[in-house]
This record gives sequence, C-alpha cells and structure tokens, in this order.
Amino acid sequence: MAAGVRQAPLRIGVAGLGTVGAGLLRLLRDQAGMLEVRCGRELRVVGVSARSKSKDRGVDLSSFEWFDAPEALAASPHIDVFVELIGGEGGAAKASVEAALAAGKHVVTANKALIAHHGASLAAKAEGRGLALNFEAAVAGAIPIVKALRESLSGNTLTRVYGIMNGTTNYILSRMTHEGGDFSAILADAQAIGYAEADPAFDVGGHDAAHKLAILTTLAFGTQISLDSIYIEGIEAITAADIGAADDLGYRIKLLAAAVRTESGIEQRVHPAMVPKTAAIAQVDGVTNCVAVDADHAGGVMLAGPGAGAQATASSVVSDLADIARGLILPPFAVPVAQLKPYQRAQMREHEGGYYIRLSVYDRPGAFAAIATRMAAEGISLESIVQRRTRALGASPDGAGAPTPVIIITHRTMEAAIRRALDAIERDGHVDRPPQMIRIEKL
Amino acid sequence: MAAGVRQAPLRIGVAGLGTVGAGLLRLLRDQAGMLEVRCGRELRVVGVSARSKSKDRGVDLSSFEWFDAPEALAASPHIDVFVELIGGEGGAAKASVEAALAAGKHVVTANKALIAHHGASLAAKAEGRGLALNFEAAVAGAIPIVKALRESLSGNTLTRVYGIMNGTTNYILSRMTHEGGDFSAILADAQAIGYAEADPAFDVGGHDAAHKLAILTTLAFGTQISLDSIYIEGIEAITAADIGAADDLGYRIKLLAAAVRTESGIEQRVHPAMVPKTAAIAQVDGVTNCVAVDADHAGGVMLAGPGAGAQATASSVVSDLADIARGLILPPFAVPVAQLKPYQRAQMREHEGGYYIRLSVYDRPGAFAAIATRMAAEGISLESIVQRRTRALGASPDGAGAPTPVIIITHRTMEAAIRRALDAIERDGHVDRPPQMIRIEKL
Repeated sequence: MAAGVRQAPLRIGVAGLGTVGAGLLRLLRDQAGMLEVRCGRELRVVGVSARSKSKDRGVDLSSFEWFDAPEALAASPHIDVFVELIGGEGGAAKASVEAALAAGKHVVTANKALIAHHGASLAAKAEGRGLALNFEAAVAGAIPIVKALRESLSGNTLTRVYGIMNGTTNYILSRMTHEGGDFSAILADAQAIGYAEADPAFDVGGHDAAHKLAILTTLAFGTQISLDSIYIEGIEAITAADIGAADDLGYRIKLLAAAVRTESGIEQRVHPAMVPKTAAIAQVDGVTNCVAVDADHAGGVMLAGPGAGAQATASSVVSDLADIARGLILPPFAVPVAQLKPYQRAQMREHEGGYYIRLSVYDRPGAFAAIATRMAAEGISLESIVQRRTRALGASPDGAGAPTPVIIITHRTMEAAIRRALDAIERDGHVDRPPQMIRIEKL
Repeated sequence: MAAGVRQAPLRIGVAGLGTVGAGLLRLLRDQAGMLEVRCGRELRVVGVSARSKSKDRGVDLSSFEWFDAPEALAASPHIDVFVELIGGEGGAAKASVEAALAAGKHVVTANKALIAHHGASLAAKAEGRGLALNFEAAVAGAIPIVKALRESLSGNTLTRVYGIMNGTTNYILSRMTHEGGDFSAILADAQAIGYAEADPAFDVGGHDAAHKLAILTTLAFGTQISLDSIYIEGIEAITAADIGAADDLGYRIKLLAAAVRTESGIEQRVHPAMVPKTAAIAQVDGVTNCVAVDADHAGGVMLAGPGAGAQATASSVVSDLADIARGLILPPFAVPVAQLKPYQRAQMREHEGGYYIRLSVYDRPGAFAAIATRMAAEGISLESIVQRRTRALGASPDGAGAPTPVIIITHRTMEAAIRRALDAIERDGHVDRPPQMIRIEKL
C-alpha cells in the first residue's frame, strides 16, 4: 500500500471467548498501535459473541457490541471479518461461518475439525464471493505453516509433508524418553497438570493430528481433503521397553503425521515412528510441534514452535487478520477448490520403509530360527536382530522357556510382507503376546 | 482474487544469469502451469540481461528480449517486475534496481549486500511509488523467514532473532564435530568441493552472516539497518580441542548470528557460540541454515532449511514474485521506512551470559589458584573448572611445568568482567598463549 493513503479500519467480530478468544482481544488491544503501522490500517474489534456475557475473562468487553447468537454477529453489517473461535465440527461454528460468508464477510477460524470436515464447501463459498477463509491457527498453533505452503512454497512440487502435530502425545513421549516410565502413569500426570484432556482418546489416539494432516495434505498436494482415508495409530501401545530399545538403536519415538506422494497415490498416516536421534525433529520435545516438507526446489524445510496455547493460537489468528487487512485474499487451499485433484489413496499395506519389531519370545530351541525363517519367507531382509533381556519386560533372567525380548530392525520392505510375517510368527506360537511393530521414518 | 476474473500476466525481467538466474528461468518454465493456478495469473519472463549472451546456461533464451545493460531491462516498458540477480553491494546491481524503481517497476532481489547497505533508501523509493521491494532470497536461502517476520508474526513483539545463517561455516563446524580434525584442513577440503570460496574470509569471518542479521534485525525490531554496529567474530580460532570439550560438556559449537533486545539497546552479534546438544539448533548440520525468534505471543518459533544453492534461492525469488502477482505489496521492512526507529547499540562489553574459557596453563604450583583468584576478583561465579590433558593440544603428559588445558564454564556474567579477568590472567604469565573464550547461548 502506498504511504500516506489512510484506509478504513478492519472491523472484526469475534465469536467464542474462551482462552483463545480472550487472548485475542488482549493481543489486539495491547498491540493495536504496532498492528496499525504494520497493516496500514486499524484492526478494530467491534462485536463479540459468547455463551455468557457476565463471565470475567480479564478483558473489558464494554466497548464491543454484544451478540447472544454468533450467527447474528456473523451477519452484522458492522463487521468486515468474522473470527470463529467456537470450536466443534458442526453446530454453531459451521452455521455462523456459513452465515458470515453468505453475508459477504471474510472469515478467520482456528477450528481444525470444521476445516478438515467442511473446508472444501466453505472454501467454495468464500471463493465465489472473493472472500478470505483463513485458518493458520487451525494447524500447529503458532507455526506459520499454512502461509508457508499457500504462499512461500508456491514454486515447488512437494513430495512429503510431515511432522509432530499433537502436543499432548509429544509431551508424553518426551517424558517417557527422558524420565523412563510407562505410558499410563505419564498420561495420568499429564491430565493432572492440564496437558491432556480428561478423555484423552482424541489426542493419544492420533485423531487430532489426523485433522491437521488432512488440511496440510490438501495445501501441499492440491488434492481434495480426505480425512477418512488417513491411516491412524495412537501411542497407547508404546512401552518403556520400546523407548529404551529405540534409544539403544539411535532413535527417538515420535507420533508422526505424514503425507507422502507415492507411485500408487498419496499415503496419509499418523502413527508412532522411529526417527534418528540426530535429526532436528528428534529434538522437538514437549508440547512443541513441527512441520517439515520435502520440496523439489526449496529442499527440506522445517518449521517448529508452540503447537497450542491461547497466546500462540491468537498470534496466528492475528496473522490471518493482518493478511485480510492488507488485502491479501487467496483461495483458502492455495488453488481454487474446483481445481483440487481427486484424492487417490495409497494403501498402508503398500507402504515401504524400515521396521522395528519387538517380539516376546519363549526361550526354547527353534524359536529364533522359526522367526528368522518366517521373515525370510516374506523376503524381508534384516538389518539387525538382537535378543535381550530387560527389566522393563519383567522377564525372569534364568527361567528357561520364559519369554525374552527379541528386537528386529528390517531393511526397506513392504508393509504387507511385514504384516504377513508377523501373523505367521504369532500363529507359530513362539511368542507370548502380539508383536510390537513401529515404522522407521527415513529423514 | 475472485474466481473467474482473468488477470494479465505478470511480466518479468531477470538480470544476472548465473546459477540462480538460470535456475529461476527453469523453475518458472517447469512450474508455469501450477504457478498460474496458484497466483491466478501467468508469471511470464519477457526479458533477460547478463554479461554474455552466448554462454550455454542449459536454458533456452530465444523467447526473451535480450538486454546488454541491466539498467535498460530495468526501465523497459515491457516488464512489471525487475529481478536483480547480479550481486554486489553497488555497481550494476544498485544502479539497475534504482532504475527499475524510478521506472515504476516492482523489484525482487537475492542480494543481501545491496539490502544490508542500501535497503532503507531503496525501500523509501519503493514505498513512495507503492512498489514492492522483496528480498526473501537474500536471507537464508529457501527459509521463508522474511515473510514470517513481515507477515506471520505481525501481532508479536520480538525479543530475539537468531540462528545459523552461513552454510560454509556450519559445514566446517559440523565436520569438525563429527569427524574431528582441524579448521584449516576441513576448510581446504570445503574449498575443494565448492562449499567454500577461494577467498573464504567473507564466510568464515562471519561477515556473510552479519549482512543477513542486519536485515533480520530491522524486520524483527523495526529499527534502522545498522550493519556497522554488528560485533563480529569468525570461526578461525575454533580448535579441535574446543569442539571436543564442548562435546564433553553437552554442547555444540555453532557460528551464531543473534540480535537481542536488551535494556541498553539492541545487541547484534555474530560469533561462535556453545548451544546445548539437545536443542534443535544443535542438530542443524552441514549447509543447512536456521533462524529462530523469541516472540511474546507466538513463543519460540524456528525455521530451518537450505541456506543457499541455486534451486533454494530460486524458490524464494518465486515466492516473492508470487506475492507481487497476487497484489501483495508491503513496506519492504514491514513498517514504512520513515517509521523505523533509530538503532540504539548495546555494547558487547555489556553482554551477559555464560562463558566457556579454555586456558593453556603452565603446570606449576599456584597457577590454578592465581586463575581462580582473578575470576573471583571480577565477581565471576564458576559453574565448573576442569583441568584436562588432551592429545589435541599436544601437551606432554609427564613434562612438569608443560602447559595443560584448563576448561572453565562460568555462570551468567558481564562480558566486560570476563575480558578484564582474562587480560589479568594473561598478564600474570601462567598461560602460554591467549585464552580462548566462547559465549554460551541460552536457548
């Protein structure tokens, strides 16, 4: 914008005044002067909506117009942008965003479920009217990955987008790694200090990360959103024995979310993965998130930062508002929705990579040979096979026939072969429980 | 942009057809269809300029108008954007960029020296006419740090921007760390394979990183560019003994470029620094660069990727072109030049932090006590002090009185105190060479 041209304020309506919404109001109040200089115009909140008008949120609401119904705020003639911080896949969030777009208002949302489920139809509505539908805050908190994919990497064809996209699971795995200890005890502790929900299934089961991945896949590859075709495994089955074995082998275990372009389509997957200790992603600990891409020109680019939190999320909402204030209105998924390509799913059984396998094997003649034979029959080539006793598994050191852990690392192979071999090994009766299998991610 | 509105092509002139320029022409040719979809209009190269028209660059130039003089291309009525890839602080680069702005053309440049020295005056010219002056490629190659600072972090007040901003030095330090070996031998090898220039002083002396830091400081803090006030130390004095001692102590040595807001002003510095092995920045190896910020709302955000190379640089040039194609024209330094605040320099002697000190001490009675007394006299509190013999220093294990290395780690202290103590220790005559001092960066 040319210097000296004074633009009208951008008038903002905020629906949802939880910690993020209240944090946003404080940020916009405290940084008002700086934002006006940077955007060339004022970012002015004019209306708000929430369930309770009287609740103390530590921020003065008296100068804002109050709306009991978010849909009414969304359609108010006094706003230019509607900020949706209500949450939830449908309900008031979806209804009010639709109302805002129908009324010709730009939309900013931090709602990953809304975008992962309804992003395409909402984007089509926005594009049809030349409106913004911005959702930087919906993916990986403060990390500016949506803008990086939508704008900075425009000249690149991507082959992979991946990262650590859930803070709760990364916090639990980090503590399991650095303190030892079992999943369930550390989960309970995480719940006690507020890093995990009372019902942790959405996070620890990998579903939260999957929602973010679905959005990033579309931005990275220009394909239609396909949340339902993501292969999902959580971290519930990761044990102290796996963490210890990974450490011995030079790896860390992370809940990885990855979308990869393969010959048979796009693989979208969320699962625990072994990453080399020496990779930067291995050092991304606690509630920090990271997202990395493999791009044909830019190469390997990684972004890391807080994946959640009121302030970090508010920072990304403001980034989206600043874009609108500056007149940057882009197709929400980088290319017009009508030009998104059909999503072709690559099946996990066709996934190729190295595997870590931990077996609990009865210590008796022939067991070891039977296992090796089953692997060989599937053409699986082994990088290493180690029989070890660990306290963590509680094996009795001198009880003949008692189960003892065997750790196998395979060379690159197809997942279908691994699954067949492990099924056969289990059927053979040499193991006292189902095999543990963790994929090794090549970085 | 609204769907269905067909915009005119963005007409591009490229001056300088070295590896980056030729790479840019190939990228724009190969990704033309995708870029047109993503930008809503064609990115069309119409004119080029270079020293030699006949040189084979592996790309067909016949469809472009040829200009012997970059200034003539810059002023051509056939272009909308002038891309400056000539290089150099002044000369043809500066003259042609000025010619382009005077003729009302947007400018994209990969030239860090031009921006670090003349960025303010060029930005003022651009702003006055509502033109873009984009330089994502001038700082840290493919890493989208300029857009992150200019746009994504708009709602944040920053307290520090720092990172690894030079690939040559990071390559040398990484090899010293992982292979052992001395600086000079690895530098010679880096020169042989093209990772270091024949005259390496600009890189290994820290000056290349300083140019990038000067630009980032202005983007991060909104202060006037001040290249001349950067404190600069190169990596020439780092020895295998330091690398080994760092490893033992849980650190890696990196050439750090950092700008920090302090009570007495802004500290800009480029110097070798100890960073914890467990920090993500410690894993940024080889020619990879990274830039991190400490922001009040977004928290700690880090970006990493290729810091140089024709393809990575071309990727960032295209990002800048895409912004212009989409109509995003921002003040080059995020705020108008007239609103940049005066740069107030914080002196290095007021720098506070921990220090690593390696002394080569004559092994005789009283030496150790004299050193400890000098540190105490300056109020310096020691975290650890270790006397050790290493082969790397060539101390004779049983030669009485022969020098032996002493490693000291201090608690947080002021640099002036450290310098006075080390001067006194040297004057006392207990050391056989000047002390080595490396700052420890708190992350």
